[in-house]
Amino acid sequence: MKDKKIGFVGLGRMGANMARHLRDCGYTISGVFDIDEELKEGLASELGATVCASLAAVTACSDIVFTVVTNDAAMDTIFFGDDNLFTDANDTLFINCATLSPDIHRKLETEAAKVGAESLEACMASSIPQARNGGLYLMIGGSQSTFNAIKPMLEDMSKDLSFVGDAGKAAEVKALVNMVMNINTAALAEGLGLGEAIGLDLEMLCKVFSQTGANSRVLETDAEDMLSRDHECYFSAEHAAKDSGIALDIAAKHGLEMPLAATTLAQYQRMIDLGLGEYDKSGVAELTFPGRKGTSQA
Amino acid sequence: MKDKKIGFVGLGRMGANMARHLRDCGYTISGVFDIDEELKEGLASELGATVCASLAAVTACSDIVFTVVTNDAAMDTIFFGDDNLFTDANDTLFINCATLSPDIHRKLETEAAKVGAESLEACMASSIPQARNGGLYLMIGGSQSTFNAIKPMLEDMSKDLSFVGDAGKAAEVKALVNMVMNINTAALAEGLGLGEAIGLDLEMLCKVFSQTGANSRVLETDAEDMLSRDHECYFSAEHAAKDSGIALDIAAKHGLEMPLAATTLAQYQRMIDLGLGEYDKSGVAELTFPGRKGTSQA
Repeated sequence: MKDKKIGFVGLGRMGANMARHLRDCGYTISGVFDIDEELKEGLASELGATVCASLAAVTACSDIVFTVVTNDAAMDTIFFGDDNLFTDANDTLFINCATLSPDIHRKLETEAAKVGAESLEACMASSIPQARNGGLYLMIGGSQSTFNAIKPMLEDMSKDLSFVGDAGKAAEVKALVNMVMNINTAALAEGLGLGEAIGLDLEMLCKVFSQTGANSRVLETDAEDMLSRDHECYFSAEHAAKDSGIALDIAAKHGLEMPLAATTLAQYQRMIDLGLGEYDKSGVAELTFPGRKGTSQA
Repeated sequence: MKDKKIGFVGLGRMGANMARHLRDCGYTISGVFDIDEELKEGLASELGATVCASLAAVTACSDIVFTVVTNDAAMDTIFFGDDNLFTDANDTLFINCATLSPDIHRKLETEAAKVGAESLEACMASSIPQARNGGLYLMIGGSQSTFNAIKPMLEDMSKDLSFVGDAGKAAEVKALVNMVMNINTAALAEGLGLGEAIGLDLEMLCKVFSQTGANSRVLETDAEDMLSRDHECYFSAEHAAKDSGIALDIAAKHGLEMPLAATTLAQYQRMIDLGLGEYDKSGVAELTFPGRKGTSQA
């Protein structure tokens, strides 16, 4: 496994730190590419990798290519643009780590097969430090045998690794996770907003929530920001709306009604309409605390 | 404190076990009353307490009376019926442990004062074992000085004790807690129902939820029951609807909109309309899993 040459496309903090960690584990980072020349040259120099002048050059020097780009449009560019990763890609394995719509993962698998390559989706529910220290939470979708072949390397990168099913399934799971997280966040904003309205000590209320059936992960991560109105963005309202929307589309395809998810999407959409789309998801509290921006009293 | 004579009205499993625990702590259980004669005689015999023939007799033999009845109507009966606890109640402290509407706690405090008595609301977010072993989660509303005077006894009964404010405030906090819990429960039912629709391994999905932003207390308590359709009642859909309704009434009084709480109330109301009101709150999954009772596919 460690004789494989590994390329990286998308050298933001996630991608760069995944590459650093693999290098630390003894893997060879063969070539790197980013539209930001400075990022590309810095990381290549740090890791002793080739500065690739094109996407095709990454494929040419790698057995495995990790792509860590931001959205479906960027994926379209790197795989289907004039210069693209599928060029002479026979026997290359692409591991695609961006949070994308389920459909693009299915399309990538089909198109990879046409050029004799393989593709896996690797959905990450973790952040920068976990990328750096090999503690990622990884959900993999695609071919089970491809997953099995690469599993030791994925284990080196993660503290928790799950194979969840066919291509696109990991993105569906992530949309589901975020759908539930978004509802719980909007619920917490209602509970705390109402607590403020009736004059409760909100620190006390958070403690009561934490010790009862109202406890949740978002209580730990978002309650304080809701109280202090610190909505610096970790996961934006726009992103929340996007993921809830993906989940609702999947539900509609299966004829299921999801009234909580729909109401939550409407809340995040209202944030966007109010110009708060770049706020962190905790900003949904602006719609539920008395006298804040999105209430009728504001 | 331990020289106080303590009466108990309402000898269901909560009340009886609270009495047992106080006796174990060295308090004297003076008199007990329940409409169920068998319960009353059994517990009196077990604890060496007087079998009270009337509610007035409980007050007559006690300094402090715990009431642990089921609803507002029962409270009305024991305090305002022909035979009632307010008879010659000068200097008696009533500690009212039922989950009631905030208004009745305020009314009880006012009426107690008229007869020279005192009243506290003691809202419990715990169950039978915690009553028996002194591990209750207690939220107290009423007069702070009355609370301070009785605090050592309440500490003997609880592992977590909070004074939350004026009479009625504890009931408001409990309605808030349950409002958030109910939303999180309905959210989980949507996440798991959609997971089933797209063919995910639901045990795997629960594990993913538990390790991500979708984690919640109700994931621990209700997910398995949602999967196995085991809706034996711990906290009924009717009760969930009642508490969400109380919270929404409070919100309306303060001019706040709570769309998630309103949507959740509608889900529990739908369960009632479908004849599922006696199901546990986890039964909301019957509305969201493909092919179950409350879906359009059923």
